Amino acid sequence: MASGKDEEFMKLAISLAAKGKTTPNPKVGAIIVKDERIIGTGYHQKAGLPHAEIEAMRRLKPEQLNGAELYITLEPCVHSGNGKRTAPCVPAILRSGIKRVVCAMRDPNPNVNGKGIVALRKVGIEVVVGTCEREAAILNEAYMKRVTTGLPFVTMKIAMSLDGKIATRTGDSKWISGEASRRKTQEMRSESDAVMVGIGTVLKDNPKLTCRIKQGRDPLRIIVDSKLRIPLSANVLKQANGMVIIGCGRGYNKKKKKELELLGAEIYPCPQKDGEVDLKRFMRSIAARGINSLLLEGGSIIDGAMVDAKLVDRFCFFIAPKIIGGKDAKPPIGGIGVKLMNEAILLRKMVVERIGVDYLIKGEPEYKK
Amino acid sequence: MASGKDEEFMKLAISLAAKGKTTPNPKVGAIIVKDERIIGTGYHQKAGLPHAEIEAMRRLKPEQLNGAELYITLEPCVHSGNGKRTAPCVPAILRSGIKRVVCAMRDPNPNVNGKGIVALRKVGIEVVVGTCEREAAILNEAYMKRVTTGLPFVTMKIAMSLDGKIATRTGDSKWISGEASRRKTQEMRSESDAVMVGIGTVLKDNPKLTCRIKQGRDPLRIIVDSKLRIPLSANVLKQANGMVIIGCGRGYNKKKKKELELLGAEIYPCPQKDGEVDLKRFMRSIAARGINSLLLEGGSIIDGAMVDAKLVDRFCFFIAPKIIGGKDAKPPIGGIGVKLMNEAILLRKMVVERIGVDYLIKGEPEYKK
Repeated sequence: MASGKDEEFMKLAISLAAKGKTTPNPKVGAIIVKDERIIGTGYHQKAGLPHAEIEAMRRLKPEQLNGAELYITLEPCVHSGNGKRTAPCVPAILRSGIKRVVCAMRDPNPNVNGKGIVALRKVGIEVVVGTCEREAAILNEAYMKRVTTGLPFVTMKIAMSLDGKIATRTGDSKWISGEASRRKTQEMRSESDAVMVGIGTVLKDNPKLTCRIKQGRDPLRIIVDSKLRIPLSANVLKQANGMVIIGCGRGYNKKKKKELELLGAEIYPCPQKDGEVDLKRFMRSIAARGINSLLLEGGSIIDGAMVDAKLVDRFCFFIAPKIIGGKDAKPPIGGIGVKLMNEAILLRKMVVERIGVDYLIKGEPEYKK
Repeated sequence: MASGKDEEFMKLAISLAAKGKTTPNPKVGAIIVKDERIIGTGYHQKAGLPHAEIEAMRRLKPEQLNGAELYITLEPCVHSGNGKRTAPCVPAILRSGIKRVVCAMRDPNPNVNGKGIVALRKVGIEVVVGTCEREAAILNEAYMKRVTTGLPFVTMKIAMSLDGKIATRTGDSKWISGEASRRKTQEMRSESDAVMVGIGTVLKDNPKLTCRIKQGRDPLRIIVDSKLRIPLSANVLKQANGMVIIGCGRGYNKKKKKELELLGAEIYPCPQKDGEVDLKRFMRSIAARGINSLLLEGGSIIDGAMVDAKLVDRFCFFIAPKIIGGKDAKPPIGGIGVKLMNEAILLRKMVVERIGVDYLIKGEPEYKK
């Protein structure tokens, strides 16, 4: 039975979990309680480092652990981690003498998915599942997307004027949104495993795609560039160090590929669809590389193609208090689009937030089958 | 000196004023107070009917009025109304023995603009100006725009998807916004003196442009149609009864003009600019006809032209939780648009409101000279 006390401990475990930078692993926090007192805490900090429950247990003596309760934001694992860097946690729990385990949620990873819970119950440990499940799920939405679908969780970020333009008719786009929104974008980069743009944006804006905030983490930079048109002098290629991936079509220029690789970029030749990189297949390769979350930063062509392929999981529109006008000004989402209004992609979980002078409207698509 | 009591009485006068449907006149409310008690109230109901102060005084005896105070939302007039249907109010106040007049604001109409205040002060009546001025000004923003500029106050109403489209690539637009937004649009029509669309919208959607809510008032319907392409069978021409105005260019078809006039439409041949109706001149004719407020309901071409001509005073974007996508889907504002970002039209007084499932974002442009 879950209780108010269970929720209290679980919320604390969730706040611990949130501290980790764990990709490709899920964020997990754990708390050990004995006689209603917290005696141990831990969280998974980084892939390759110990899992949360091991962290929480490791400073405790066997007699402390014996008969204790474990609060954990995700079902404990029964398999070894990536590359077997970490031992599975269930055996450690079994050995510890812990008598009750409260999990916020099952691990949707097909390698786990209830097996950890079954293993614990088998030896008579009381297991409660589902305490603060919603909050725990939000924490790992990107991980869950990847392990259940083999695709990354894609957030499309757009800065547009109130009249739905991302640039003037001449292509000028500096700056549409205000300072606060641009800072927020940097935070979003820092929280994403990867950032992606189309080659058009590289050629036009020559962005670095790094994170410019202090303490920020540079995301992996991904460019969709069917014909490897990217100039070797592009800003995004500076200090690539294995942090740049370029998705191209099959007919790429082998010499250009080598030159780019010498600069530290990885080239992913992809199957093509209508002459362009097959984005769904490319996204699968990205996910297979352990990328949970991807921030899509445009422009219009790649955003349109990603929407047409139903690959976007969240839309974030920064709407600036400006009117640009002009029939030839760029729209945020190009591509083919829907034919009829009743085929439009409906958004749920709509939220609006004021960011400086702009509004940020977020929503999640409900794709029809 | 204004006091808390003055404000209290003035707010009541403003709420009375709001009841009027007074176009082309301003909305005005009045309250008569003696010994701190309200003894009379009135408001201007309709052009041609008595002004607010006359309404407020008319049931009072001379001895009641003598030494009383008048609270009025707009400076009393010194000129006769349109077509001299109503006598000016200042002489009536002078005769009444009222000793103090509190006005929310001057009447910006060049025929008044302080003259009423001067006339009252000249005979020793105490006049306070500026109590609750902001609220009073909002009530008459459209009237003020017309009398100070000779142009109507134009509100652009747009229903678009979050990705800034007003129709799919095939032109389908039924319906982008939800029921609550569509109801709100009907209210906006009822509160506007006129509704305007471009001929493209008439040909594509064949709208009635009437107000479909109970107790609603049908606005004047205005169509911009350079070449008089409107079909005689168009819905908007049914029961025209002098409530339809069509602005066309100089080279109109005389026979078509006659046929349209027989259906009850008024045709305004206008000077042209780059082959299209000169919208500024057309708006001047509309204002001269006594239209204070105009609701502009699209489409993309006319909206773009109105923005290019800096004729829009307020933008109302109903944003639906939908993604349409497509490089060929219609944007809300066509036209030429700005060339560079620093020429974008900045919006102030931004407000966001939830209307059913949609968001309504409003803002007012700050046009550069």
